[in-house]
Amino acid sequence: MMLQKIFKTSTLALISTAALCSTLVTTSYAAEGQSERHKFEVTTVAEGLSFPWGIAFLPNGEALITEKSGSLRRVGLNGVISEPITGVPDVVYKSQGGLLDVALDPDFADNSWVYLSYSEADPEGGEGNSTAVARGKLFGNNLQDVEVIFRGAPKYKSNAHFGSRLAFSADGYLFITLGDRYSAMDDAQTLDNHHGKIVRIWPDGAIPEDNPFVNTEGALPEIWSYGHRNVQGAAMNPMTDELWTIEHGPKGGDEVNIPVAGGNYGWPVATYGVDYDGSIISEKTHVEGTLQPFYYWVPSIATSNAIFYTGSEFPAWQGDLLVSALKASKVARLDLQDGRMMHEEALFGDVVEQRIRDIEQGPDGAIYLITDDRNGKLLRITNADD
Amino acid sequence: MMLQKIFKTSTLALISTAALCSTLVTTSYAAEGQSERHKFEVTTVAEGLSFPWGIAFLPNGEALITEKSGSLRRVGLNGVISEPITGVPDVVYKSQGGLLDVALDPDFADNSWVYLSYSEADPEGGEGNSTAVARGKLFGNNLQDVEVIFRGAPKYKSNAHFGSRLAFSADGYLFITLGDRYSAMDDAQTLDNHHGKIVRIWPDGAIPEDNPFVNTEGALPEIWSYGHRNVQGAAMNPMTDELWTIEHGPKGGDEVNIPVAGGNYGWPVATYGVDYDGSIISEKTHVEGTLQPFYYWVPSIATSNAIFYTGSEFPAWQGDLLVSALKASKVARLDLQDGRMMHEEALFGDVVEQRIRDIEQGPDGAIYLITDDRNGKLLRITNADD
Repeated sequence: MMLQKIFKTSTLALISTAALCSTLVTTSYAAEGQSERHKFEVTTVAEGLSFPWGIAFLPNGEALITEKSGSLRRVGLNGVISEPITGVPDVVYKSQGGLLDVALDPDFADNSWVYLSYSEADPEGGEGNSTAVARGKLFGNNLQDVEVIFRGAPKYKSNAHFGSRLAFSADGYLFITLGDRYSAMDDAQTLDNHHGKIVRIWPDGAIPEDNPFVNTEGALPEIWSYGHRNVQGAAMNPMTDELWTIEHGPKGGDEVNIPVAGGNYGWPVATYGVDYDGSIISEKTHVEGTLQPFYYWVPSIATSNAIFYTGSEFPAWQGDLLVSALKASKVARLDLQDGRMMHEEALFGDVVEQRIRDIEQGPDGAIYLITDDRNGKLLRITNADD
Repeated sequence: MMLQKIFKTSTLALISTAALCSTLVTTSYAAEGQSERHKFEVTTVAEGLSFPWGIAFLPNGEALITEKSGSLRRVGLNGVISEPITGVPDVVYKSQGGLLDVALDPDFADNSWVYLSYSEADPEGGEGNSTAVARGKLFGNNLQDVEVIFRGAPKYKSNAHFGSRLAFSADGYLFITLGDRYSAMDDAQTLDNHHGKIVRIWPDGAIPEDNPFVNTEGALPEIWSYGHRNVQGAAMNPMTDELWTIEHGPKGGDEVNIPVAGGNYGWPVATYGVDYDGSIISEKTHVEGTLQPFYYWVPSIATSNAIFYTGSEFPAWQGDLLVSALKASKVARLDLQDGRMMHEEALFGDVVEQRIRDIEQGPDGAIYLITDDRNGKLLRITNADD
């Protein structure tokens, strides 16, 4: 990738939005890069976010951004970062745990529901925790009528592998992607727990009657698919309304899957990776009764989230899956054709050089990234073609 | 890829096979490497070949190898290289042209037919040339009853883009892959010539009645598919008996295709690449009426040939497509699952560090490579797992 870096001093008007304003970015940084099909510009929209994890765009164009420490903030595209929104549930902020993803209800404009995934302590005071999902109605800078709609079981003492992304299907189901809690990896193969599962519920927490294991004795009825490791990414394919998930693998073996109802994706009995200390988890990549990934990376790129890009800003990328990554500081563009994987391109890495925790498409068709850092940034990628 | 290099002195017995012996390798070089799923050892079986281009294994375990300058030789796995086999047609040896691929008849054991592709001068004395295919019966060190079964049209003045690989389908058709002759690239879109085409004939040169354009006025009846650039690789998929081809692209845009009857693969109106001087050939990657590749590389790896690996030497690679490359000095392993592309691994590159012109699976399940060099080598890759 050829690249040019340019530096700009912006002349952002000093518009303070009253009480919401706690940080104001007065300079912005932009860098240009060249990809296979488009030139692009990376602009720092905002910085000073503490380990941001999830982004969702509000109808007014602001971004809702979670910080792992437990804050949910509004971030304007002018760089203004609000005070924390009140009413957010308490989270267990430790290692990989904290306030994680954020999503808007598909009918947000009518019902104001905002969904949050997070690490929740044991309400009975035990040492364990688990991924939970709550929703609340966003009015101004306050979440109201907050209710927990999903609570992972069991509560388990671990600070790792919580999942967790939220994705709504066009027919109104809410998918929640979960993790195996690391030391509980074997649980991913049994149906009596939520470790290493993807679950499907209604937005109010009710169990869909057509979930694959609702009639299986001993199985938790929320389960959609199993045999996963740490599914930190999810995107609905707008062409097919299928759920596509991004699984953060062991050393080697990050995966893209298209989880089908009741599917077993093999972890930890079948994997392309080894443990981070180099020890073997399984010699097998194929085990009967388990499903192969759609695509996998060896070595790992440390996947985080993904989107199907549909905007007009980058016409050559329409329909492609853009997968953000932590380790390799890049976005992997999977050029898809009729559901087939035709080519992979590494985007932005030479320019961004930071761990990318989330990727979203903005209402303007630009691509937005947040960086996993104590001085976390919101970056905007726009077209810079001649 | 971690790698260790080790050097060995072999103690090859000095067995001279009488008149056939012109070169004797008395030392061999071996290097070990580590891939994702297997350790491997690379051994130099023979060297001193002049720009070898194609390999085919005889039932007795010897390899038939072409040299671009016009010689066809037997190469024993003990390193013995024969004198040139007599009876080989004259070739135009210049730049990319010369004696190119070699293939055995599927019934070779009964009929002794050997097929050769090569650059053939204009028999009427003109300045042009084209890819041709001849066959002859191999007895001892002599080709007999030699006949030309295919002659590309028109004869054209160019030293580039001849194709050309030979592949027999299980039902007995012979596919010949061709090139666009570079300066005649636009011909790839019209059916009145063989430039940028794949053709399908019977082994005696007869035209199959079910070829897609036999009833199309003005079309050459040998044509199977069109819109290709320089198809230097071909392999039959043993699971499906489909032809898979490897197309050497412009700068960016090497392709794997699965050519269907009558398919237009887009060159030069649709391509992922640009010309080697950086100039645009087409802005378009998608043009209505043309088919997308199965897979493509940007930047180019300078593909040469490919095999579907089916041996027991490397169990984890069974069913995978192994694509050899010139520029990147590697073999790209495409991990296939139910015809889907799931992962690419770069094999051997750190160890081989040479331009690889052809890849074949030996009768022993080992993988054989030839290197594109004035001191061309035959390399054997074997399993070195603990």
